[in-house]
Amino acid sequence: MKIGFVGLGAMGHPMARRLLAAGHQLCVYNRTAAKAADFAALGATVGETPAMVAHDADIVFSMLLDDATTEQATFGKNGIAEGLLPNAVHVCCSTISLEQARRLRDGHAERGQTYVSANVLGRPPAAEAGALFVMAAGKSDVLDYLEPALQCFGPHIFRVGDDPLQANLAKLSLNFMIYSTIEQMAEVFALNEKAGTDPRKIFEIMTGSFYNAPVHKNYGKLMVDHAYDTPGAPVTLGLKDVGMFMDAGGDYGVPLPYAAIVRDRLLSAVSAGDADRDFVVLQERVRQESGLT
Amino acid sequence: MKIGFVGLGAMGHPMARRLLAAGHQLCVYNRTAAKAADFAALGATVGETPAMVAHDADIVFSMLLDDATTEQATFGKNGIAEGLLPNAVHVCCSTISLEQARRLRDGHAERGQTYVSANVLGRPPAAEAGALFVMAAGKSDVLDYLEPALQCFGPHIFRVGDDPLQANLAKLSLNFMIYSTIEQMAEVFALNEKAGTDPRKIFEIMTGSFYNAPVHKNYGKLMVDHAYDTPGAPVTLGLKDVGMFMDAGGDYGVPLPYAAIVRDRLLSAVSAGDADRDFVVLQERVRQESGLT
Amino acid sequence: MKIGFVGLGAMGHPMARRLLAAGHQLCVYNRTAAKAADFAALGATVGETPAMVAHDADIVFSMLLDDATTEQATFGKNGIAEGLLPNAVHVCCSTISLEQARRLRDGHAERGQTYVSANVLGRPPAAEAGALFVMAAGKSDVLDYLEPALQCFGPHIFRVGDDPLQANLAKLSLNFMIYSTIEQMAEVFALNEKAGTDPRKIFEIMTGSFYNAPVHKNYGKLMVDHAYDTPGAPVTLGLKDVGMFMDAGGDYGVPLPYAAIVRDRLLSAVSAGDADRDFVVLQERVRQESGLT
Amino acid sequence: MKIGFVGLGAMGHPMARRLLAAGHQLCVYNRTAAKAADFAALGATVGETPAMVAHDADIVFSMLLDDATTEQATFGKNGIAEGLLPNAVHVCCSTISLEQARRLRDGHAERGQTYVSANVLGRPPAAEAGALFVMAAGKSDVLDYLEPALQCFGPHIFRVGDDPLQANLAKLSLNFMIYSTIEQMAEVFALNEKAGTDPRKIFEIMTGSFYNAPVHKNYGKLMVDHAYDTPGAPVTLGLKDVGMFMDAGGDYGVPLPYAAIVRDRLLSAVSAGDADRDFVVLQERVRQESGLT
Repeated sequence: MKIGFVGLGAMGHPMARRLLAAGHQLCVYNRTAAKAADFAALGATVGETPAMVAHDADIVFSMLLDDATTEQATFGKNGIAEGLLPNAVHVCCSTISLEQARRLRDGHAERGQTYVSANVLGRPPAAEAGALFVMAAGKSDVLDYLEPALQCFGPHIFRVGDDPLQANLAKLSLNFMIYSTIEQMAEVFALNEKAGTDPRKIFEIMTGSFYNAPVHKNYGKLMVDHAYDTPGAPVTLGLKDVGMFMDAGGDYGVPLPYAAIVRDRLLSAVSAGDADRDFVVLQERVRQESGLT
Repeated sequence: MKIGFVGLGAMGHPMARRLLAAGHQLCVYNRTAAKAADFAALGATVGETPAMVAHDADIVFSMLLDDATTEQATFGKNGIAEGLLPNAVHVCCSTISLEQARRLRDGHAERGQTYVSANVLGRPPAAEAGALFVMAAGKSDVLDYLEPALQCFGPHIFRVGDDPLQANLAKLSLNFMIYSTIEQMAEVFALNEKAGTDPRKIFEIMTGSFYNAPVHKNYGKLMVDHAYDTPGAPVTLGLKDVGMFMDAGGDYGVPLPYAAIVRDRLLSAVSAGDADRDFVVLQERVRQESGLT
Repeated sequence: MKIGFVGLGAMGHPMARRLLAAGHQLCVYNRTAAKAADFAALGATVGETPAMVAHDADIVFSMLLDDATTEQATFGKNGIAEGLLPNAVHVCCSTISLEQARRLRDGHAERGQTYVSANVLGRPPAAEAGALFVMAAGKSDVLDYLEPALQCFGPHIFRVGDDPLQANLAKLSLNFMIYSTIEQMAEVFALNEKAGTDPRKIFEIMTGSFYNAPVHKNYGKLMVDHAYDTPGAPVTLGLKDVGMFMDAGGDYGVPLPYAAIVRDRLLSAVSAGDADRDFVVLQERVRQESGLT
Repeated sequence: MKIGFVGLGAMGHPMARRLLAAGHQLCVYNRTAAKAADFAALGATVGETPAMVAHDADIVFSMLLDDATTEQATFGKNGIAEGLLPNAVHVCCSTISLEQARRLRDGHAERGQTYVSANVLGRPPAAEAGALFVMAAGKSDVLDYLEPALQCFGPHIFRVGDDPLQANLAKLSLNFMIYSTIEQMAEVFALNEKAGTDPRKIFEIMTGSFYNAPVHKNYGKLMVDHAYDTPGAPVTLGLKDVGMFMDAGGDYGVPLPYAAIVRDRLLSAVSAGDADRDFVVLQERVRQESGLT
């Protein structure tokens, strides 16, 4: 297949390489041209604009930072929508707000174009290994058509529903699960620490018994290690995610008290000067409130 | 070893059988005598009071319903403390408040007696299979001495600390993790359901990706099945657990906002007439707030 | 003075009349022309666009519904900014987000124009009576200049600070005080009702003792009367207000747990079908959670 | 009338003096005898025990610190219940838990004795001036009988209901209104302070407009003055009050999210070392979370 890929960041880069490795004919675009250049050496072509990438593709993936960059790359000047062929599909993998997902869905529909959301779970190493979890939503026959391409990212393609927004919301939901699990563990760690028990001991019991999911192991480990400065995702990203999740609650009239508490923790982390540290640092707000230093 | 066991309820019964099966000489007591009678046929002796059970034992386990029954069986008339031999140990496995655990610790200490908390994680089938997780806290040499007996309950003995209360708090903490994971998933399920996605689909993605711990699988399954009337633990038990966890927060000056939210859900469940249903029914409060019926 | 007034809604209409009654030369604009027509009969002139209203005025007030209408009337085609004279002042009285207030402040500054925020507290009858409370923020000498005009709205001009945004935030804050007082009273009323006490009795005690501010009296009365369908402000307006307040918390890194709870109540009210009822209906969510019907 | 008064603390002392000044024949008791001695000089008699005070009285008031002291003075050895005459009434004015109020009501009923709760609002200076607000609950004819005595405390006797507990809950409710108003104002003050506005300015606007109840004026003033060390009521008292209010919510199945937040603030204040400072210091937790120092 002829595939276009727009956005070669920490996630997009390895995802695009997986497509190339699977033998697809690839054309890439990145705002910072240097990252795209790597691909030329590997046999991909480099488009000068998202429109040019789209112009010759059956499928165009986009994997960008946020709402604004996605909007610009899609409907801006020389955007994907300008070049997308009649039978081609735009597959957006970015973690974006439902509002932006709605704009993509409706904007493409107005132009008679086909659009699908395919969000992924996993970090860059999983992307390199083709071990991401993919949550796709859109018309069923389009998802059938995309299946082989999506499987380059990971063996597990979860189909969430017919409306692309359903995949976006699933993604926001699973990210929220991370933040709220951190708060949960933070309350437990702080209380046990004040009672004289090393949180590492509680972490060992958790992960050695019924709380042994990756979400517990990975984030719990960072928490007991106070590893706030390892290269991970910052507080500001957490705030963006939780904000989008709460906005979704606003759209559908769903109260989300656990999300509200996490938002407040992250805001407090910003005020404490921790905006750029790993979001597990929210634990420090729980510790400070408890008189732990 | 000569072992006494006080309290042969849903958990105590299989735990005591494990000790017997391991070849220990067992003397049991249960307030309702019928349950103890089963044990006579298996070669155990039956004591008429907790004191009599203690009178001839190296180790006396107690596994009772709550603070009041534990206090009565320990320091009440004909209680364990009356019969406990100078070199014997009382090991309390009940899920009790820190206040009650303090009374046990201090009450035995005043009498020059040895006391240890050994709480367990797991349901009756795990107790039968000797697959419980044990969290023990008390003096190190006493725990060494107890190790072979505790291993009858499960292969994993986590040592939480020197102070018996540390095990009790660990137990309350891990129970809280159940309730707060239910709230977490309930918010996610409700929001996705309002957006048109079957919660079963989200459950499948969760448990198929990074949220695949027993806590997610077991309770999430009950939630998506709306299985509120299966034989499980009722809302009232959840309220008791969360109350004891919040009281511990009160003791140590630790704010616990997630616990407070769960408490409110459970109170609301009681007001909705669901006091005796499985505590996953708290999900219905989240659903009602969201306009789902 | 020559005064322009843009926006003749429920609040703007009586405010503009106060200016006219005080002898100011008034030119008005309203999107729906009929409302402006009333003013012609009273001796005001009617501008065809906000720009035309501004073109001949020393001071231009705007009192519009929200961010979008304010933005459009100010910087849109034929907006205030197009007509504002070099020495004139735009005074925005609308309840808007800090983001929009920032756009007004900065947009006028870029054009070398003078801008001030002057928010008001009070309902239409108070506006008619010139009994509003005015919170003004902007350069001190400009506020001196505006003082006589502002006093047409009410005798009390509170000067909040030099930055116009400070008045907008004060307004959002005082509105939040309304919603959170309702939640406060709702919790008290529900608990006492379940204990067998008529909330009217509690309301009588409150307002007869230390909780006798207008915020208690006015909203408490609606609550005990279950007066959810009197012409007041709807749930949707409450949601907008609380949302803007929480966004301000986001801007400045301030956790606002009470605001988050109110937001959730209002969202739940929307899901219950009460979007258009008076926002005191949020009390019903507290009642339902408590098993009151 | 012959009146007994048990408990001559900061509130009981001036309340008893009011009764004496009104010409009632008074017999007093206080655990610390010195305080009672003052009364002898004023013409009161001093009883050696609560029972002795009760033995010769038509009405016995008790105004004690908490549940335990009230229980002891009522049903303990030489307690009020031992001496209470057949036609006499015990009127408890203490702020106690509903559980303790239930014990008083039921314990007196078992003994065939008459019991009424009469809680008061106001601080010691108001007690001296006979300007307290009284909330009484009990049988109607008993309240009629008590009316003249109660009016010594304040002109306003609110009758809450037939069940004494209703007065106790009203009292706990109105105290909760204090704490939640402090949290409300604290969020507003912190946010405006971060936006550059002196909280004093916001306080001035609040109390100059619709938020001018004593609860706003008195506590708001302490807050903007950071007057945490004036002789007032400490954090520990706030915790006790909020705990009793939340326990009442537990009794009646009423979720109380605002109360839970205040409890957490007060717990955090304890952990910050502020247990003995005035409870308005809870504001500092809001400020710290917001990065204000």
